Amino acid sequence: MFSFRLDAECKFTGARTGEIKTGHSSFSTPVFMPVGTRATVKAMAPFELQEMGAGIILANTYHLYLRPGSDVVREAGGLHRFMGWPGSILTDSGGFQVFSLSTLRDISDEGVTFRSHLDGSAHLMTPELSIKVQEDLGSDIAMCFDECVPWPCSREESEEAVRRTLRWAERCRDAHAGKGQALFGIVQGSVFEDQRVLCARELAAMDLPGYAIGGLSVGEPHGEMYRILDTVTPEMPISKPRYLMGVGYPPNLVEGVARGIDMFDCVLPTRNGRNGTLFTPTGRINIKNLEYERDFSPVDPECGCYACRNFSRAYIRHLFRSGEILGSRLCTWHNLHYILDLMRKIRGAIAEGTFPEFRRRFHETFRDGATPC
Amino acid sequence: MFSFRLDAECKFTGARTGEIKTGHSSFSTPVFMPVGTRATVKAMAPFELQEMGAGIILANTYHLYLRPGSDVVREAGGLHRFMGWPGSILTDSGGFQVFSLSTLRDISDEGVTFRSHLDGSAHLMTPELSIKVQEDLGSDIAMCFDECVPWPCSREESEEAVRRTLRWAERCRDAHAGKGQALFGIVQGSVFEDQRVLCARELAAMDLPGYAIGGLSVGEPHGEMYRILDTVTPEMPISKPRYLMGVGYPPNLVEGVARGIDMFDCVLPTRNGRNGTLFTPTGRINIKNLEYERDFSPVDPECGCYACRNFSRAYIRHLFRSGEILGSRLCTWHNLHYILDLMRKIRGAIAEGTFPEFRRRFHETFRDGATPC
Repeated sequence: MFSFRLDAECKFTGARTGEIKTGHSSFSTPVFMPVGTRATVKAMAPFELQEMGAGIILANTYHLYLRPGSDVVREAGGLHRFMGWPGSILTDSGGFQVFSLSTLRDISDEGVTFRSHLDGSAHLMTPELSIKVQEDLGSDIAMCFDECVPWPCSREESEEAVRRTLRWAERCRDAHAGKGQALFGIVQGSVFEDQRVLCARELAAMDLPGYAIGGLSVGEPHGEMYRILDTVTPEMPISKPRYLMGVGYPPNLVEGVARGIDMFDCVLPTRNGRNGTLFTPTGRINIKNLEYERDFSPVDPECGCYACRNFSRAYIRHLFRSGEILGSRLCTWHNLHYILDLMRKIRGAIAEGTFPEFRRRFHETFRDGATPC
Repeated sequence: MFSFRLDAECKFTGARTGEIKTGHSSFSTPVFMPVGTRATVKAMAPFELQEMGAGIILANTYHLYLRPGSDVVREAGGLHRFMGWPGSILTDSGGFQVFSLSTLRDISDEGVTFRSHLDGSAHLMTPELSIKVQEDLGSDIAMCFDECVPWPCSREESEEAVRRTLRWAERCRDAHAGKGQALFGIVQGSVFEDQRVLCARELAAMDLPGYAIGGLSVGEPHGEMYRILDTVTPEMPISKPRYLMGVGYPPNLVEGVARGIDMFDCVLPTRNGRNGTLFTPTGRINIKNLEYERDFSPVDPECGCYACRNFSRAYIRHLFRSGEILGSRLCTWHNLHYILDLMRKIRGAIAEGTFPEFRRRFHETFRDGATPC
């Protein structure tokens, strides 16, 4: 029910392209997964995501466990059916959200006691419960429950989190029934190279079908992220997909791919879209700016998305100034289209052996405060 | 550029079916016009409106005059192009909004001085300016600038408004350049039958291409509305379209049609949709109610809209509880589909000579506090 096939590798960088098959769909890698936190990719309908070629989306265990409750989703026939999404779904474990959104009560080896950010109710999330919830959701790829440390954090704090993450990964594997769902491990270790290497090796020994890198893109400089990727991806099995969690800023996607990453997710394109910040080949623009008041050209004349084919910057600006839902829809649509299209171009360049040239040209063109490595 | 053709009339009621042609589209009547106040039908994209068979939408002169400004829309090439809508557009005159939304400063025979509800800026709206703005917007049907009185109001207040509305209608006609845009008159007169009859006759003498009934659906009981319709529609030219402004509650649509109305508009289906109130053949339901938590059936199993074909009540409830945009989208989509479908069924029943039977069955089935006449 889950397979990964490598098709081409770049001769000069770590970039590679391939295909992942799940029980629901096949999609090419490197892939970007739009984020559908609460069983919907904000502002979008499933048919629109299909139209723009999304093969897999991400949903959040923490949010769906609290509302509507994973029992409701299970009774609905699983998340695919509940949200009307025919493609693949990856669920994160709830680890990141438990640490970032809830009011933490207690972290122990058993699990994490927390209070819901919705109603203050108390819950104990354990590796076993995370797996149970993800099985109820019926995602194609489940993630091991991990401990996420903030950045910056001390070497000791990070070491403790790595230790717990490894122990919890074993418990997740033991609790996981399989049934058409692949379980991925998560490498932690903050910005400490030795801890990252240790964590990656221990997880590799568990022979899971895929591995993620967690705890990056949490505020550290881009250079730090790239340094850790340079260290950790060579320690991750070549034949398994590598997933860099929470990364979606275009220059980071290109650099992640160059370091051997196959999967990405991030709220950036959808969140930026709802704020009126739009991706273009030369960087981001804010559509609310006065300069677009009488700009009757599309956001990007070269872009083939629904927004760019049908509407002007002036119109989208008007929608935002008026607080109209269509504004959020069009900008989300455009941004996701931009990112999915970027991934298509990246895959094409890898397949054609021109990725280094693509990478160079991308950084020359995309200029909005990016820190090209 | 504008024509109206009558195709069939009911033998037992005033109901009739026909076709309106504008420079942009042809559509069958009786017709419901979704409301796109600020150059967007809230939560919907143009292609979705086309898909559900909307032939004409309404936009608001008052709102677009204030933001983005009718000069911006004119520079964009007109409202159709600005908002990417290929069908027909009717613009109201701004009369109703000047009286209901702004801070009124002064009403004189010259026009209305008001303060914008957006920024408090002062403006003078005159019949001539209303026509100029509507010509800038480039709608297919423009409305005469009229004076709307609230309900209830005194006979004297209403009489003064009728007098002014008639004088302003002449000024609108004189100011109107034509150029592919039809100008409709508006009958006022509150709930006073003699004033309604007088106003309708005076306007009919102006030989405008269509006529509307304003000042109804402003709080009066349904029975009062029906009484005025019974009085006024016989005074309106048979060969011109009759438009009942601001009416969209399903039982009122059926009863309006029975009294010879050809066109309707209302924010009800879109506003209800954004509040999670959904139309069904047996009345309205509120999707946020607990009873739908585990209801995995569609909103209406007989409905062919995108929401009903793909999602459950439980899922839509979840979207609303989570404040997700897709919830507003799906409910708006369903409600507009419901209303447009109701109009299709009404037209079919008139054409087949079964409208009285259709009307009886409709009121027997649709039960949510309606006052069938």
